[in-house]
Amino acid sequence: MKKLLTLAALMWIAISGLAAQTPGGTEILPGIWKFTFGTPDSITPVSIHDAPPRQEAIAALGSDGACPVIPQAEFGRRGVLLTLPLKNDELLYGLGLQLQSFQQRGKKKMLRVNADPRVDTGDSHAPVPFYVSSAGYGVLIDNARYMTFYLGSKRPEGAASDAVKVEIPRSEGVDVYVFAGPTMKEAVARYNLFAGGGTLVPRWGLGFWYRGETDFTQEQILALAEDFRANRLPCDVIGLEPHWQTASYSCSYVWRGTFPDPAAMIGTLREQGIRTNLWMHAYVHPSAPIHDALKPYSGDYRVWNGLVPDLTLPEAREIFKGWHAQATTGIGVSGFKLDECDNSDFTGNWCFPEIASFPSGADGEQMHSLFGLAIQQTIDELYRERGVRGYHLVRSSGAMAAPLPCVLYSDLYDSQVFINAVAQSGFCGLLWTPEVRDANGEEDFLRRFQAVMCSPLAMVNAWYLQMPPWKQMNREKSKRHIVDPGSPEMTDACRKWLEFRMTLIPYLHAAFVKYHETGIPPFRALVMDFPDETAAVKDIAGQYMMGDELMVAPLTATSKGTKTIYFPAGTWYDFFTGERIEGGQALTLSFPLDRMPLYVKEGAILPLAHATLSTEDPDSRILDFRVYGDDPRPTAVYEDDGGYPAQLKENQIHWDAKRARIRFQSKQYTSGKTIRIPSGQPGR
Amino acid sequence: MKKLLTLAALMWIAISGLAAQTPGGTEILPGIWKFTFGTPDSITPVSIHDAPPRQEAIAALGSDGACPVIPQAEFGRRGVLLTLPLKNDELLYGLGLQLQSFQQRGKKKMLRVNADPRVDTGDSHAPVPFYVSSAGYGVLIDNARYMTFYLGSKRPEGAASDAVKVEIPRSEGVDVYVFAGPTMKEAVARYNLFAGGGTLVPRWGLGFWYRGETDFTQEQILALAEDFRANRLPCDVIGLEPHWQTASYSCSYVWRGTFPDPAAMIGTLREQGIRTNLWMHAYVHPSAPIHDALKPYSGDYRVWNGLVPDLTLPEAREIFKGWHAQATTGIGVSGFKLDECDNSDFTGNWCFPEIASFPSGADGEQMHSLFGLAIQQTIDELYRERGVRGYHLVRSSGAMAAPLPCVLYSDLYDSQVFINAVAQSGFCGLLWTPEVRDANGEEDFLRRFQAVMCSPLAMVNAWYLQMPPWKQMNREKSKRHIVDPGSPEMTDACRKWLEFRMTLIPYLHAAFVKYHETGIPPFRALVMDFPDETAAVKDIAGQYMMGDELMVAPLTATSKGTKTIYFPAGTWYDFFTGERIEGGQALTLSFPLDRMPLYVKEGAILPLAHATLSTEDPDSRILDFRVYGDDPRPTAVYEDDGGYPAQLKENQIHWDAKRARIRFQSKQYTSGKTIRIPSGQPGR
Repeated sequence: MKKLLTLAALMWIAISGLAAQTPGGTEILPGIWKFTFGTPDSITPVSIHDAPPRQEAIAALGSDGACPVIPQAEFGRRGVLLTLPLKNDELLYGLGLQLQSFQQRGKKKMLRVNADPRVDTGDSHAPVPFYVSSAGYGVLIDNARYMTFYLGSKRPEGAASDAVKVEIPRSEGVDVYVFAGPTMKEAVARYNLFAGGGTLVPRWGLGFWYRGETDFTQEQILALAEDFRANRLPCDVIGLEPHWQTASYSCSYVWRGTFPDPAAMIGTLREQGIRTNLWMHAYVHPSAPIHDALKPYSGDYRVWNGLVPDLTLPEAREIFKGWHAQATTGIGVSGFKLDECDNSDFTGNWCFPEIASFPSGADGEQMHSLFGLAIQQTIDELYRERGVRGYHLVRSSGAMAAPLPCVLYSDLYDSQVFINAVAQSGFCGLLWTPEVRDANGEEDFLRRFQAVMCSPLAMVNAWYLQMPPWKQMNREKSKRHIVDPGSPEMTDACRKWLEFRMTLIPYLHAAFVKYHETGIPPFRALVMDFPDETAAVKDIAGQYMMGDELMVAPLTATSKGTKTIYFPAGTWYDFFTGERIEGGQALTLSFPLDRMPLYVKEGAILPLAHATLSTEDPDSRILDFRVYGDDPRPTAVYEDDGGYPAQLKENQIHWDAKRARIRFQSKQYTSGKTIRIPSGQPGR
Repeated sequence: MKKLLTLAALMWIAISGLAAQTPGGTEILPGIWKFTFGTPDSITPVSIHDAPPRQEAIAALGSDGACPVIPQAEFGRRGVLLTLPLKNDELLYGLGLQLQSFQQRGKKKMLRVNADPRVDTGDSHAPVPFYVSSAGYGVLIDNARYMTFYLGSKRPEGAASDAVKVEIPRSEGVDVYVFAGPTMKEAVARYNLFAGGGTLVPRWGLGFWYRGETDFTQEQILALAEDFRANRLPCDVIGLEPHWQTASYSCSYVWRGTFPDPAAMIGTLREQGIRTNLWMHAYVHPSAPIHDALKPYSGDYRVWNGLVPDLTLPEAREIFKGWHAQATTGIGVSGFKLDECDNSDFTGNWCFPEIASFPSGADGEQMHSLFGLAIQQTIDELYRERGVRGYHLVRSSGAMAAPLPCVLYSDLYDSQVFINAVAQSGFCGLLWTPEVRDANGEEDFLRRFQAVMCSPLAMVNAWYLQMPPWKQMNREKSKRHIVDPGSPEMTDACRKWLEFRMTLIPYLHAAFVKYHETGIPPFRALVMDFPDETAAVKDIAGQYMMGDELMVAPLTATSKGTKTIYFPAGTWYDFFTGERIEGGQALTLSFPLDRMPLYVKEGAILPLAHATLSTEDPDSRILDFRVYGDDPRPTAVYEDDGGYPAQLKENQIHWDAKRARIRFQSKQYTSGKTIRIPSGQPGR
């Protein structure tokens, strides 16, 4: 009987004339097909999403009208079973943050939000029911259930065909979206544009972030900022951990007595070019002023005795935002760290159960899949309504997240896994920071520090340290305040890497503008940029493109300074030494602690800023340029008012070969020195 | 509409008069109630179980006719939701092998079979939908779905009541069984008796087991046995790892050319008192002689290109047994290691998917819950049909497993976790061996060795070592054949512990007879034996009762020879030194490498065998006795023919206080020396 439903659904589509170009599906935008099977759930990632697709940018990608893969559905006691055929040589990527794996074909993944996904089963902070194929298409299954993806597994002996199977429990139907390529990069771009385009980080978001000890008082936070400035250490954001509030598990969102005048503190920090970020989560303590108002809009289970507001409802969002517009953003808070939204799976007390129910009609399972998205949307609205853009941290995300200005992080702490996640997040409209939280000695610290400098959000999270790690290395996790004095040399080494980050900001900002306008992720795996070399790069997770011109391969302490790096075809230059390397080969190279593997593509013009203490310093807009090769591509940097919607001014940068000069038409930016690196000299 | 079903079910029970003593439930045996909600699944642990309940032994436990907990059910899109009320002070134990936790109240557990359960989410080699409460009752949910247990979590703010909630997906009904106490021990005993009583291990099963290197040939296996005997090392079983077969992933069950005459090899080993155990799993290779015959009785997915036979079907079991009766058991194989039946969850290729379907009507999810049980039942039948009892290893199990003669093990290798599992397995009719597979140096090896000597199956699994670990310590996991020579002292130390095990066999065997006849597990947590001291022992997982008289607290290398041990009320004696310790207190004690924490309850008579090289040696039936205290309890040892059904002869042992002698009426056993230890002298 259930099979009849499929037929009925297909017939309905046929009768309604929607299936114009593809049996059972309709091309809703150029190169984007929608297939509806049965009766889809009413609460899904697409249904709660509020950003419109970027129609013009999608149209610019074109379409040949042929849907690259045709899903089919069966219905039964186990719910909906989708089948999407696979060709023999297809490789699959995506499904969100899969910390233990990279290429997904042959895997089985159940997409369940989980705060501590230690095993490669699909559990994830940010599971996303979107995957891309090396054959050049992407697939989004728009559903908030814990779906199981069987990513290719042959059935009977000698079976000639293979397929992705997706099991959707507790559903009677589903919408499936297919995104054309021709390559993975365009398929991902189309998915991101369908979601509304990539987020555009304000320039300050690309500076250095530091999170203070959880019990720091107003006085200590101000002293911390003074210390940064006294040591000439760049810093754009200081984060306050849980104890700025009177209650934090669950949250009151009310300042503690240890912060007698938070508005004054925020103002003083801002005068030093430092913005304030606040830790919080969405579980609302009984003492929170919004507790009673939120009660009718909350689920039927509590977490840490706090309400779980149903933030998919506008009413709940309005109450939540209303308070913050007074207590936090209203006094100048620039962003949040949205913690604990990722389903701590171990007890009934650290998360709401799947059997919970919410006023929107969602059950606990669906809400877990949507909870991270809903809190991000709420906070994003809060800033949009103020006319400014924020940049936040969040511990859970999901489908259609590209336009949300939030970066994922986690407690888990394997260095290489954290690096791999930078590239992997790019398949699904996510951003990830391998935040530096802990380190096993100086080498480990510096290698982690280098990695985070080449990520979407450069942060040290020192919530358990009285002093910054360059003054105090933490070696024993179980004790919070072990002091193992750092050295002036460590401070100098860290300053060097912070300055390195500051110089990259114009380049990184331009990569985010591209993300915003074209959907191409600013951080992405090599396999996206070099589809002709798929065989060589298909499993390379720890090496990634940062923008269009830089290739990064961060080291970990266990690599002891040596790493085998694959150089795709073409010519590359070592960012630090200028050494020229011919691509199409893998090389094992060594790096002293003051260098890391960072390579520039021939033909790049790199705009590098003066390294100021914060992006607020006007000198941060003084640029140097590096030119790589004889015939460089034009590039651009952008002026950005940080507002919402963003007011951007594009400044094109050209190489004038005849006069050996940069052409740069901006009144705002000043060209510093211009250095051309045709063959191997150091840049600066 | 679904709610009506519940009512209908309840009404049906009411009309049919079954709900005599308890609303909605019926007392099917004294102290055992059955509640039926809706329409239960047809394939469940109870439905595939074939041992009848031990009615007389259950009757002997009596009943006051009051069901200790009344389950209720709701029905909805998420399946069946059971609610079982909890009192404030109840603690919960069980749910099978929960390697990361012990007391379960407040936890959330999804019972999913998983080969590598690294996180405390309910994933387990052997999840069992049975739990016991410190209030003195047990509950079995008879279902093969991945059920989620919310083991107490308060709902709204200030809620006065709490409950266990059990979510059963994809089911329209369920049978729930409640087992009365009055204490946890009787509730567990009742559950085990309902399943048919505990397994009765043949004496040889309690000797030492050793698994040879996976590529060992017939010649090397024989040389290994010679080496054991030349070094006077006890050994009752040698295990062959995968490569005795022509194909092992999947399995052919056909001897390789490296075993030119397996029957002769098995015979030669047996002459040395050594039995042969074979590694295998149930995935059937295309080259297996039974492959084609099994095809119609197999699932629609393959694992390692092997068939997955539906061993819940008698037809499939007959074919499987038919081959083994020729090729393995028919030539004298004494048992199996049933590997890989525990759902390697990582890929589509290492296990069948949940969406698989089987001829019995089970889907993949149900089959995962039943697969370990079904292969155990098949192998058990194989031996029963030969009229002998086997003793086997298995990597997955489930509900109603007490009568199955199989011991669980795993690849995971945290020493303390493995020790804890010995006690935990006792809550649910399971047995567990913390097999010694790897060690980080001599101390680690010896502490692991001591622990496994105090477990249901004393085994070293050296599948990757050319020589036994006392000759060759393995220090690097990634390489298989690192030789770090052991020492003659190591061999001597190991011999001492092997002899220790051999002396315990009459005592351990009697504990298994008790398991068989009364359902009381031979290895169990302190909280089962000392309910009056629940507050003190509720979280003690690493210390357990071995039989009625011995309390074990194995050390790990990380404890560096020191451990805090809780002594329940009463008087205890150190097994090794005879030192007398007053109970009702915790003591921190130190142990050199040649001792371990093992304590005898005052009033015990311990029958200790002469330490022979195998249980086949008639001298193994020469007994020494140790008497602890002035007024010892009578005890018993059993003669056992190893047959099925077992022919047992009970030999009662009494203390004749007047003549200070043991009264022991057996012709088979000879009393050796009799030593009375009233106050602190060493025993022997």
